[in-house]
Amino acid sequence: MTTTENPVRNGVDTATLFATLDAVKQDPELAKFQFRATNRWISGTHNRSTIEGFYGAKQEMAHHQSFTFDADHPAVLVGADNAPTPVEYVLHALAACLTSGLANIAAARGVHLSEVESTVEGDINLLGILGLSDGVRNGYQGIRASFKLRGDDPEKLRKVMTQSIERSAVFDILTNSTLVTVEVDAG
Amino acid sequence: MTTTENPVRNGVDTATLFATLDAVKQDPELAKFQFRATNRWISGTHNRSTIEGFYGAKQEMAHHQSFTFDADHPAVLVGADNAPTPVEYVLHALAACLTSGLANIAAARGVHLSEVESTVEGDINLLGILGLSDGVRNGYQGIRASFKLRGDDPEKLRKVMTQSIERSAVFDILTNSTLVTVEVDAG
Repeated sequence: MTTTENPVRNGVDTATLFATLDAVKQDPELAKFQFRATNRWISGTHNRSTIEGFYGAKQEMAHHQSFTFDADHPAVLVGADNAPTPVEYVLHALAACLTSGLANIAAARGVHLSEVESTVEGDINLLGILGLSDGVRNGYQGIRASFKLRGDDPEKLRKVMTQSIERSAVFDILTNSTLVTVEVDAG
Repeated sequence: MTTTENPVRNGVDTATLFATLDAVKQDPELAKFQFRATNRWISGTHNRSTIEGFYGAKQEMAHHQSFTFDADHPAVLVGADNAPTPVEYVLHALAACLTSGLANIAAARGVHLSEVESTVEGDINLLGILGLSDGVRNGYQGIRASFKLRGDDPEKLRKVMTQSIERSAVFDILTNSTLVTVEVDAG
């Protein structure tokens, strides 16, 4: 048995990361995942999602615990401000996806990271969702992310950032279109 | 002063909702919003976002409280499973956005809602983000939402669902493309 001197880098278990890559190369069926959220309306714009089970690696799986997240509108948008708006969760998802990617890719390349901070801003014109202008889209008109990276030399860090964008699920979801179907059981 | 008999419907303050619509019609600048999230890397794929301030109605605003949300990968994806994955937050955002819209639109139309439940599923093939196939996208290959609506007659409920999809910010963000720019400060 061979051991590596420091298999954990940036908090990433690189030995397991490479073993996972090898396993998926051998059996691409392991790569097919399905994620899920269930949601229940509470009142007005306030509702709650639960995230627990998912499918992956050819089996039903579950997180170690069930996670719940509320969403609401602030008072200025006629809500009770019990939680962030749905569109703010999208910004969190983008920041989180790029940050996870940075840590994994840096670890895989032997690049040391000491600090990652980011701010993500999205501009939205509510004339769209309020139905007051057909020329204004409902979603964000643009999103800007600013990352501060510290650790190894800047050139290495910038290359890791580029690769994280290149391989980010949420970046792809936002910058490209996805087919979304909605079924309704109205009884 | 005139009062309406039941200005709160489905938990939505319809008087304020219509007053907000009128105010925005008078001054479209009120409709320009900017939402934000900041994120800090913790270790490995674990990181934490904070959501607090936003811009809207021609002023800087803030939620009543600061909200924090973690993201992580499950063990099967080489994480510590401290929180849902970024892509699961996207599903929560879609369910929450469509549900908020249902409540608002139903209230505006005088449609009674008693129950809204939904499940959102997204299929993703990790050959994309793992860099093992250039032919596989990084993001969801498709998303399916199933809504159960109870309250007024089914035909009215289905029309409210259609309008909620038509005016959903997150549905638009997922089904259409958005420009995302990333700035890097690597020091």
